[in-house]
Amino acid sequence: MADAFLDLLSASRDAAADLGSAPSELRKQGIRAIADAIESASDEIVAANADDVRRGRDSGMAAGLLDRLHLDAERVQALADAARALAELPDPVGEVLRERTLDNGLLLTQVRVPFGVIGAIYEARPNVTVDIACICIGTGNAIVTRGGSAAESTNRVLVRVMQSALVGVGLPEKSVQTIDEFGREGAGRLMTARGYVDLLVPRGSAALIERVVTESTVPVIETGAGIVHVYVDGSADLEMARDIVVNSKVHRPSVCNALETVLVDRAIADEAVPLLVQALRDASVTVHSEGGGIADTVELADTGWATEHLALDAAIRIVDGVDAAIEHVNAYGTHHTDSIVATDAAAVSRFLQRVDSAVVMHNASTRFTDGGEFGFGAEVGISTQKSHARGPMGLPELTSTKWIVRGEGQTRS
Amino acid sequence: MADAFLDLLSASRDAAADLGSAPSELRKQGIRAIADAIESASDEIVAANADDVRRGRDSGMAAGLLDRLHLDAERVQALADAARALAELPDPVGEVLRERTLDNGLLLTQVRVPFGVIGAIYEARPNVTVDIACICIGTGNAIVTRGGSAAESTNRVLVRVMQSALVGVGLPEKSVQTIDEFGREGAGRLMTARGYVDLLVPRGSAALIERVVTESTVPVIETGAGIVHVYVDGSADLEMARDIVVNSKVHRPSVCNALETVLVDRAIADEAVPLLVQALRDASVTVHSEGGGIADTVELADTGWATEHLALDAAIRIVDGVDAAIEHVNAYGTHHTDSIVATDAAAVSRFLQRVDSAVVMHNASTRFTDGGEFGFGAEVGISTQKSHARGPMGLPELTSTKWIVRGEGQTRS
Repeated sequence: MADAFLDLLSASRDAAADLGSAPSELRKQGIRAIADAIESASDEIVAANADDVRRGRDSGMAAGLLDRLHLDAERVQALADAARALAELPDPVGEVLRERTLDNGLLLTQVRVPFGVIGAIYEARPNVTVDIACICIGTGNAIVTRGGSAAESTNRVLVRVMQSALVGVGLPEKSVQTIDEFGREGAGRLMTARGYVDLLVPRGSAALIERVVTESTVPVIETGAGIVHVYVDGSADLEMARDIVVNSKVHRPSVCNALETVLVDRAIADEAVPLLVQALRDASVTVHSEGGGIADTVELADTGWATEHLALDAAIRIVDGVDAAIEHVNAYGTHHTDSIVATDAAAVSRFLQRVDSAVVMHNASTRFTDGGEFGFGAEVGISTQKSHARGPMGLPELTSTKWIVRGEGQTRS
Repeated sequence: MADAFLDLLSASRDAAADLGSAPSELRKQGIRAIADAIESASDEIVAANADDVRRGRDSGMAAGLLDRLHLDAERVQALADAARALAELPDPVGEVLRERTLDNGLLLTQVRVPFGVIGAIYEARPNVTVDIACICIGTGNAIVTRGGSAAESTNRVLVRVMQSALVGVGLPEKSVQTIDEFGREGAGRLMTARGYVDLLVPRGSAALIERVVTESTVPVIETGAGIVHVYVDGSADLEMARDIVVNSKVHRPSVCNALETVLVDRAIADEAVPLLVQALRDASVTVHSEGGGIADTVELADTGWATEHLALDAAIRIVDGVDAAIEHVNAYGTHHTDSIVATDAAAVSRFLQRVDSAVVMHNASTRFTDGGEFGFGAEVGISTQKSHARGPMGLPELTSTKWIVRGEGQTRS
C-alpha cells in the first residue's frame, strides 16, 4: 500500500546515502548556495512569514512567540550570514579518531561518518529550519524538519528555496525535507520511524522535549531546560559572587543557561544574602524564597525549586555548606550548568566532581555555557543528556563513527 | 507513599555518587575483592545454580539456554579470572578529552565521568551478572541488574557475594543491586525510570532488545542482532573468498558476528557459487537460496534475507555487482558487520563508504568484530546503534563526559 509518509522518509534515506558520500567541498558549496538563495528570495520569505505572523496574532499567540516567529529582511540576512560562517568550519566527516594495526596485520580505522537522516522537531522558529539544515549538510546528514503549524508558510518557502539551491550545485534535492504537511500525526510517526530516522533533535519548550523523549523509539538528543544554580560558598569573594550571580541572571534571562536559583552558604548568609538580594533587585529581578521568608523577597513559584523562570525572576536559598548545595543542585537542577563561587579548594573540588551536570564551573558566569563561547563556531544546542553528547554541541556531535577493517584474507583461528 | 522499587533505585543513585568519586585504585581493589569472593563462594554459587538449572529443565528450557544458564566450578573460576583481568585495564574515568583556554582566560576541560546508574537487562546468563558488575565498577558506575527469573537463585547469591566484597574494601554495598524480585513489572519500571537510571544495556535475544528499545524512555545502548554479509566481488581472489566465507560462518555460528548471507557478483557467479556452496557444505553448513534455485541449496527461511540463523545455516544470493550488494546489505542487514572480498579498489572504496554498518571490512573474516580482537581487553557488547557508541565497546564507551570551566570571576559582556 502506498504510504506518502514513508515514501518521503525513504527519499531522505536515499538522499543521505549520496549526500554522505559527497566531498566536503561540495557540501560547503551547497551551504553557500543556500545562503545566496535565501538572500535572493528574501522578499518571498518575508511575505510568507507575514502570513504566519498574521495567523499567529489572530489566534492570540503570545508576544514572545510572535517575536520568535517573525522574520524580516534583516533577520533573513543574518540567516544567510550564519550559513556562510558555517561553511567555513572544519568538516568532521572522515576525521580519523583511532587507528591501529593488530598483530595479525589487520588495519583498524575508526572514522567519523554522518548519522544518515536527522529529524528535527521544533516550534514556530523558522530560523531553525535554515540553521539545522545547513548544520546537517555540513555534517553530511539529510534533514527532515517538523517546524510546527504556526510557521508552516515560512518553512514551506524556506525548504523549497534550499532544495533548489542544493540541486543547483548537484546535491540531492531531498537532502532537506519537511513533514509539516502531515501535521501533528507526522511528528508522532517521525518519532517512531526506526530504520528511517537515525537521530532526533527536538528544540523548544520543555513540554515538547518531554514528549519527544517519552514517545520516541529512535535515538534522541535531549536539549533543553536549564534550572541553573550558582552556589556562593562561605569562602567566596562576595564582590565576585555578586557580579557572577547578577550576570548569570540578567545577561539574557530567557535562555537555558540563565541562573534560576542562588544557593548561599549559611556561614556567610547574614552578610551575603542581603547583598545578593539587593544586587538582583537593583537589576530589576524579583527574588523568591521559601515562604518569602527572606527580606525583600516573595514566595516561590508553585513549582518550587524546580522552576525555570526564563524571566527576571530568581530564587534564593540558604544551605548548610557545599554538600547541601550539591544535594540541592542534583535534586532540583536539570544537569545543565552549575557554578560555585569559592576560594576554598576542597569545596571547589567537591562541587566540580559531585554536581552531576553537563557543565560545572568555578568562579564563572553560567552564561558561558554556549557553543559560540566554547569556540565551536556553531550552536547546535546544549545537550542535557549523558549519552553521545553532553553540554554545548558542535558539528562533530552530529556525526556517528564507523570502524573500517582492512585485511589481506585474515580469518580467525 | 513508600515505593520499594524507587527506594532501591535511589540507593543505587546514592551509591553511584560515592562510587563515581572513589579513586581508581579503590575501584580496582573492589573488582579484585569480587574475584576473590566469587572463588571462595564457588560451592554456594554452583549449588544455587543447580536449583535454577533443575527448574529450567523441569519447565522444558531448550538445551542451548540451559547451557548458558549453567555454572560449574570451572566457569566460576573463569568469571573470577576475567574480573582480575578487567582490573588491569586502564581506567577511563578522569581522562581529559579536550582542554583549551579561552581568550577571556576561562580554562575549559572535558573529562570522562561515569554515567551514574546503569541498568542491565538480560536473560538466564548468570555470567553476565558478574561481568557487567565488574565493568561498571571499573567505570565508576552503579549497576542495577534484571537477570531474568530463570537465573534468579544464582543471581541472588552472586549479587550478595559481590556486595559484601565491595563493603569489605570500603565501597558502597548498593553499587551492585538486582531488581529480580520485582519480576517482569520491574523490568518495565527500570526502562522508564528517568532520573534514576542513566543508561540501559540490554543483552540477549532480538525480541528482548526490541522490547527494551521500544519501551524505554531512558537512553539505551542497542546491542545485538547480526545479519552479517560477505560480498564476493567479481575481482575477488576466490580462494581467499572461500576461506573468509567459511571462517565467517563456521568459526562460531551462534554469535552475532557470524555470517548469515553470502552475496556473489553475477560476473563470477558460474565459477564462484558452486565453489562457495561446496565449501560451506563441506563444513556442514546448510545453504539456502531463493526458491532453493541454486544447486545443492534449500529454500530460504520464512524470514527471507532478514534471517539471523545463529546456526550452521547460511543464505547465498547472486547480485549485479557492488551497488546491488550495497543495496542488499543496507536493506536486509542489521548494520553490524559486513565484508567485501575484492581486489578492485573502486569497488572496495564504494562498499566501505556506502555500507551503513558499525564495522565494514575488506578481505577479512566478519568474526573479527569483537572487543577482544580489537584490543579493548573487555567485551562490553557490540553496539548496532549510531549514537554514543558504535561497534565493539570497551570501557570508555560506558562513560559520559563533563565540561569543567575554571574562572577567576569572568562574566559575559
